[in-house]
Amino acid sequence: MKSLTEHLFFRTESRREFINITPEVEDLVEKSGVKEGLCLVNAMHITASVFINDDESGLHDDFEEWLEGLAPHEPISKYRHNRTGEDNGDAHLKRTIMGREVVVAVTGGKLDFGPWEQIFYGEFDGRRKKRVLVKIIGE
Amino acid sequence: MKSLTEHLFFRTESRREFINITPEVEDLVEKSGVKEGLCLVNAMHITASVFINDDESGLHDDFEEWLEGLAPHEPISKYRHNRTGEDNGDAHLKRTIMGREVVVAVTGGKLDFGPWEQIFYGEFDGRRKKRVLVKIIGE
Amino acid sequence: MKSLTEHLFFRTESRREFINITPEVEDLVEKSGVKEGLCLVNAMHITASVFINDDESGLHDDFEEWLEGLAPHEPISKYRHNRTGEDNGDAHLKRTIMGREVVVAVTGGKLDFGPWEQIFYGEFDGRRKKRVLVKIIGE
Repeated sequence: MKSLTEHLFFRTESRREFINITPEVEDLVEKSGVKEGLCLVNAMHITASVFINDDESGLHDDFEEWLEGLAPHEPISKYRHNRTGEDNGDAHLKRTIMGREVVVAVTGGKLDFGPWEQIFYGEFDGRRKKRVLVKIIGE
Repeated sequence: MKSLTEHLFFRTESRREFINITPEVEDLVEKSGVKEGLCLVNAMHITASVFINDDESGLHDDFEEWLEGLAPHEPISKYRHNRTGEDNGDAHLKRTIMGREVVVAVTGGKLDFGPWEQIFYGEFDGRRKKRVLVKIIGE
Repeated sequence: MKSLTEHLFFRTESRREFINITPEVEDLVEKSGVKEGLCLVNAMHITASVFINDDESGLHDDFEEWLEGLAPHEPISKYRHNRTGEDNGDAHLKRTIMGREVVVAVTGGKLDFGPWEQIFYGEFDGRRKKRVLVKIIGE
């Protein structure tokens, strides 16, 4: 069995951002030498997400508005978590909706994707250094 | 390490539908010859879902109503994504709630399931040809 | 390839509860002898969840309140599923938001975690015996 473990690093300029990380993950699959296996991509921080969807800016705006409706950032005092001195209570909930991780099949040495699938890093409490873990196992 | 990669195909008659795909996945686990390992089942389209829950029609109606409340199909103009000419903005959000994929343990050559666990394909923008990927790895 | 399959058992005293199961999963990773691989942790019941977030009690209270807003327990008659004699229609929806499973990388014989990541069992229909499956594969 082969395995590869790598990290991607982020420090976004705004509080919330979606970043397409598909090319970076594809490069790591190639680097791993795995032809048949599984690729795990997960946020290592609990106010960020890794998810798969379409790379279409209108959709990303829809996500932003929808998540803000489901778990609004303000009022800050709405969240008990913010009594710890944080203002990211909403970010924990938004990341829960979007998910922590994706597992993608590796087939013939490539990410085995449908026509529109792209992997995104979803930041909900940015302007801090964050990491994503990529772990590939197989043969 | 053994691995198997197969696709399931769908073209639902209605826009939204839940289909129990457990028997098909069980057959693929047997075909793979894997006794101990992991089975990934994922939608390859970003307006569809694969999830695990109970095969109970009342519950499925509850899911339908609940998702329509969280991300209504209409008005179509509500979603910026629909300015691309699509009318499936809601389907991207509904699939996000229900999830893209499941990872199931394979133990003793079988899906290692609790008493009520069943795997479903969740379609939110049907009447088009769609695919699900099943990838099994192990020994 | 090595693999380990184990179960954790729960019978909570209240209907809803979050339990940190990280130490138990860490022990199983050590027991497995896997140095590089993947660890799947999933609820085996469809009214319970396994998720990763922060071990902070204010946040857990926020989750509880937020989930109750998205899928209220009452009125019981709100859910068609409850016509089967159950009163857990809401629990199926709450677990869907929080997720069934997590997949965690195993690196150097340890769970490969970010600084605040902890694994929780989320119970939404307790006072019954429930199980979580831990499956570790790798080398």
